[in-house]
Amino acid sequence: MAFSITRAAHAELRVTDLERARAFYVEALGFVEIARGPDRLYLGGLEERDRYSLVLRHAKSPGVTHIAFRTSNPDDLDSLANLYQSFGCPVRWLAPDEEEAGQGRALRVQDPTGLPVEFFHEIAQRDRLLQRFDLYRGAHVMRLDHFNCQVPNVQEASDWWVKRLGFSCSEYTVTEEEPPRLWATWLHRKQNVHDIAFMNGIGPRLHHIGFWVAETSSVLRACDILAALGMVDAIERGPGRHGLSNAFFLYLRDPDGNRIELYTNDYLIPDPDWTPIRWSINDPRRATFLGPYPTALLVRGGGTGRGHPHPGVDARF
Amino acid sequence: MAFSITRAAHAELRVTDLERARAFYVEALGFVEIARGPDRLYLGGLEERDRYSLVLRHAKSPGVTHIAFRTSNPDDLDSLANLYQSFGCPVRWLAPDEEEAGQGRALRVQDPTGLPVEFFHEIAQRDRLLQRFDLYRGAHVMRLDHFNCQVPNVQEASDWWVKRLGFSCSEYTVTEEEPPRLWATWLHRKQNVHDIAFMNGIGPRLHHIGFWVAETSSVLRACDILAALGMVDAIERGPGRHGLSNAFFLYLRDPDGNRIELYTNDYLIPDPDWTPIRWSINDPRRATFLGPYPTALLVRGGGTGRGHPHPGVDARF
Amino acid sequence: MAFSITRAAHAELRVTDLERARAFYVEALGFVEIARGPDRLYLGGLEERDRYSLVLRHAKSPGVTHIAFRTSNPDDLDSLANLYQSFGCPVRWLAPDEEEAGQGRALRVQDPTGLPVEFFHEIAQRDRLLQRFDLYRGAHVMRLDHFNCQVPNVQEASDWWVKRLGFSCSEYTVTEEEPPRLWATWLHRKQNVHDIAFMNGIGPRLHHIGFWVAETSSVLRACDILAALGMVDAIERGPGRHGLSNAFFLYLRDPDGNRIELYTNDYLIPDPDWTPIRWSINDPRRATFLGPYPTALLVRGGGTGRGHPHPGVDARF
Amino acid sequence: MAFSITRAAHAELRVTDLERARAFYVEALGFVEIARGPDRLYLGGLEERDRYSLVLRHAKSPGVTHIAFRTSNPDDLDSLANLYQSFGCPVRWLAPDEEEAGQGRALRVQDPTGLPVEFFHEIAQRDRLLQRFDLYRGAHVMRLDHFNCQVPNVQEASDWWVKRLGFSCSEYTVTEEEPPRLWATWLHRKQNVHDIAFMNGIGPRLHHIGFWVAETSSVLRACDILAALGMVDAIERGPGRHGLSNAFFLYLRDPDGNRIELYTNDYLIPDPDWTPIRWSINDPRRATFLGPYPTALLVRGGGTGRGHPHPGVDARF
Repeated sequence: MAFSITRAAHAELRVTDLERARAFYVEALGFVEIARGPDRLYLGGLEERDRYSLVLRHAKSPGVTHIAFRTSNPDDLDSLANLYQSFGCPVRWLAPDEEEAGQGRALRVQDPTGLPVEFFHEIAQRDRLLQRFDLYRGAHVMRLDHFNCQVPNVQEASDWWVKRLGFSCSEYTVTEEEPPRLWATWLHRKQNVHDIAFMNGIGPRLHHIGFWVAETSSVLRACDILAALGMVDAIERGPGRHGLSNAFFLYLRDPDGNRIELYTNDYLIPDPDWTPIRWSINDPRRATFLGPYPTALLVRGGGTGRGHPHPGVDARF
Repeated sequence: MAFSITRAAHAELRVTDLERARAFYVEALGFVEIARGPDRLYLGGLEERDRYSLVLRHAKSPGVTHIAFRTSNPDDLDSLANLYQSFGCPVRWLAPDEEEAGQGRALRVQDPTGLPVEFFHEIAQRDRLLQRFDLYRGAHVMRLDHFNCQVPNVQEASDWWVKRLGFSCSEYTVTEEEPPRLWATWLHRKQNVHDIAFMNGIGPRLHHIGFWVAETSSVLRACDILAALGMVDAIERGPGRHGLSNAFFLYLRDPDGNRIELYTNDYLIPDPDWTPIRWSINDPRRATFLGPYPTALLVRGGGTGRGHPHPGVDARF
Repeated sequence: MAFSITRAAHAELRVTDLERARAFYVEALGFVEIARGPDRLYLGGLEERDRYSLVLRHAKSPGVTHIAFRTSNPDDLDSLANLYQSFGCPVRWLAPDEEEAGQGRALRVQDPTGLPVEFFHEIAQRDRLLQRFDLYRGAHVMRLDHFNCQVPNVQEASDWWVKRLGFSCSEYTVTEEEPPRLWATWLHRKQNVHDIAFMNGIGPRLHHIGFWVAETSSVLRACDILAALGMVDAIERGPGRHGLSNAFFLYLRDPDGNRIELYTNDYLIPDPDWTPIRWSINDPRRATFLGPYPTALLVRGGGTGRGHPHPGVDARF
Repeated sequence: MAFSITRAAHAELRVTDLERARAFYVEALGFVEIARGPDRLYLGGLEERDRYSLVLRHAKSPGVTHIAFRTSNPDDLDSLANLYQSFGCPVRWLAPDEEEAGQGRALRVQDPTGLPVEFFHEIAQRDRLLQRFDLYRGAHVMRLDHFNCQVPNVQEASDWWVKRLGFSCSEYTVTEEEPPRLWATWLHRKQNVHDIAFMNGIGPRLHHIGFWVAETSSVLRACDILAALGMVDAIERGPGRHGLSNAFFLYLRDPDGNRIELYTNDYLIPDPDWTPIRWSINDPRRATFLGPYPTALLVRGGGTGRGHPHPGVDARF
């Protein structure tokens, strides 16, 4: 059985201060502000036609309420409900507009991994802004790209999403035990590296939401803007390039600590019989192709960086 | 008295293996290989007309033999010799081609800071390659930009280079003592931020030689190429942006540990009455405008980056 | 019936001088040279795993011998043969390696549009070079993206490729007659704007083959390199941005006059129920979003560009 | 006698509608709006410290009222007045703030070329915005770079500006007559290619004012934004690369037809004894390194571009 899941579509994050979150997402990073509800802010990217892809919801503590996937077949919502129920997973139906304004009937499930997942078919459309270059701001956020999740048992998560939901693996990481254990996996329905990834770790947790930006320069501009606005602490890691996925990336924390990734420059996977790329957990280029970026502040004179024996070069006459 | 010093022009680095150094500078970074002598390799940038700007000299240990500045007036070499001698600094004359092939008569001095400095007027010219885009490789290194040096007494170094040699200060850093002490200074003759900088530290030492690259994307490409060639350990810090100078930069170590910087995106200073920009040593944006780039490998699950309380975001149903 | 056609995969161009063509494709543009046969040169892009995506074949006159699509299901080759035969189209089977080394059994058909189309399932794979940044040259050609064809009857071509072969329309152009006539259509199987486009015109003709390059800067670099190599006449139009597809592009002519396009920056279409974007033939932004680029050489003093009334601005005291 | 002229500093353009001009310069191109007077709008670039570099003045017809240069020595204003008067050129003194708010005492002259030139020493300073990346908009205009003027006798103009005012030539164009005639010349005081250029043509006329933008991508972004705002007619020529100066450029017309250039990527000239680069007027790469950009709208089927014999490639079975 193959479900018509097409892509990672949107997510709702809990934030404790909507205005402070808006300053980060809209003013600094250039997310498009679509609408406001009483306790929600609806944001989107420049390439998207869905009404929104990121909902910020006022709450007492940060976190994610759900990650959502679209199905192209409306009947698949019922089939998915049946599947989840047959495995004893809690399910819940949302009426159109019940929580998020503009969304049709939706199914919320607690995935076997424990993650709160939503499936929907219908969502209000808006004019895309792809060619409204006059409105491009900040990081030029084009669209939501993927969710990255931590779970204690990656093999189980992978089995569910591949064998039950019909996702395909683009790249994966294994341990060097014998036999090797699946340590992380990148799964996709749309034709790039992932819609969802699972990594070994305490969980279930959402590690980050990845947003596609137009070019590598968009990532650099985001850094500059955040620094100019006094939000440099939002920069958690990067800019850098992942070995796995080849993406050029930047990890950011929103003012509540929710993590997002600016992501670009991965590749297209048009063939369903793609041979997944295998990485060893001990390959230093897997996570950070360009190396670990030592923090030593060399210009303060004491830093040596990477264990080099001399901080400067002797200058003798 | 004003000397006609026009710019930082070239330097000679000691390397223990010329072929290994060539693989780094020419094959990875795209320096132009101009010529070879018995124990020297002459390299240059795409924009330069001087025959060379970086000489790699085979030696038993790494380091720098001298940093060189050009004067537009040939007579200034004698005036400079007189000045240095009148302050008891050792001086030495090199005949044309005596050490570096293509250079005219040159003056070597041991600067009051202790640094080995060369002044010359004449150097063989070559066709510049600025519009030979077919030859652009690696980081698209355009020209030598500056020398950055560590000295124990920055005020003394500054006094010499400003008051005696006629350099101007573009930006500087002071301590927060009362009265403040000059902690670092960026001095220039050509019209961008610096030809030479002095920073407080153990010295005299050459901290790095800065090379101008064409655009920020050149810096990213250098990272990618180094990683692809298995030279990721050469990446010491960055890519990032300096607060001071505004330059987008990358610090690299050559295979012998000599440090160079890829540098671009500072600004023009056409007015001699420019008001220098003052930074406090405690301004976190001074050295690294974009923040310290924590090394925590977050995707391995344990890293938290910048002390954020939770590595992932709880995902509860 | 839906065929498992996954993407535009490769094409074979006739060239009259293989060495001259190699200088253009490999030395200037940076296509990867994979192999040589007695009268063929096999080229590929940096992201591809297929052994090749562009075959240059020595011939007495330029042109294209066939454009090829991959199916993920090997049995679809037979189904496609049946379909074409049932409509009276000539078909021909090629044994593995019969023409192109590394390709499995392949079906050649003369499409109802008259175009020579090949379908194949199996092709030898090679290590992709996506992360061999040290090998990136020229325009950083990543992969073949699409074929653009001229036909006298676009509606008929569209009907065949959509209704019979299962392609989807991303964008299209209509005349302003009543009722409007389909003037051009962009059809895709992989999830970006097109694998094949049909435009109204004398035909059947291949207008161009589009190759994906990594970023907009890749297009600019290609221009610079071609100019540096004395191949500026290869630049036919651009760099510019298409309104339709949003792609940043450059049209080039190879030394035999075969046209290719460097293409990047379109968008992802993950939903099968995508509403195609409609353009009027008279919308000036459709073909060239940025305008027609007048040729007037203004700096020679006589050019006025776009009919502006004065070539310079009067400077009166 | 050498005057302490440091750079092209600002200009005042006449525009017939201040709001319409503001939409072009500020909203589309991202010039910083500094202040407004009753009939003037003061604009600047992100890197500048001078209060303004472009003044838009409401007038009945377009044109330029003057182009202005700064001297670092205030006494040079008097020396310049003497020089001009001794050659019979009209001169006029402006009191501080007499016309432009923030400028000190200024000298207006009618240059021997007929151009209206201003010299000043003092101008109010403002905080530069170089590191206020959050304020970067449009083309990221950094600073005024140069003036390009048309005159009937380039040799006379050159003699005045080089021999009398102390400018240096970076590059020049000669006719192929015997002896060759100076056809155009690029003159500088600051250390890049030019502060003022003179080209042969009907004049005296200001051909354009050049503004420095940060990177080549800034030029592309300007094109996209202008097109998105329905101002595509403002794009007169480019984006392209000049052979002479090597700059990547775009010529624009403001809503009144005043021409400006977005300009980046030329090179530094730190040596006063620079050997000027000579171009022949018939070198096709001089004005447009990348070729003339034919206008033929190829996708409409009829265009052939550059005289290629076939608009598409025959596709025969």
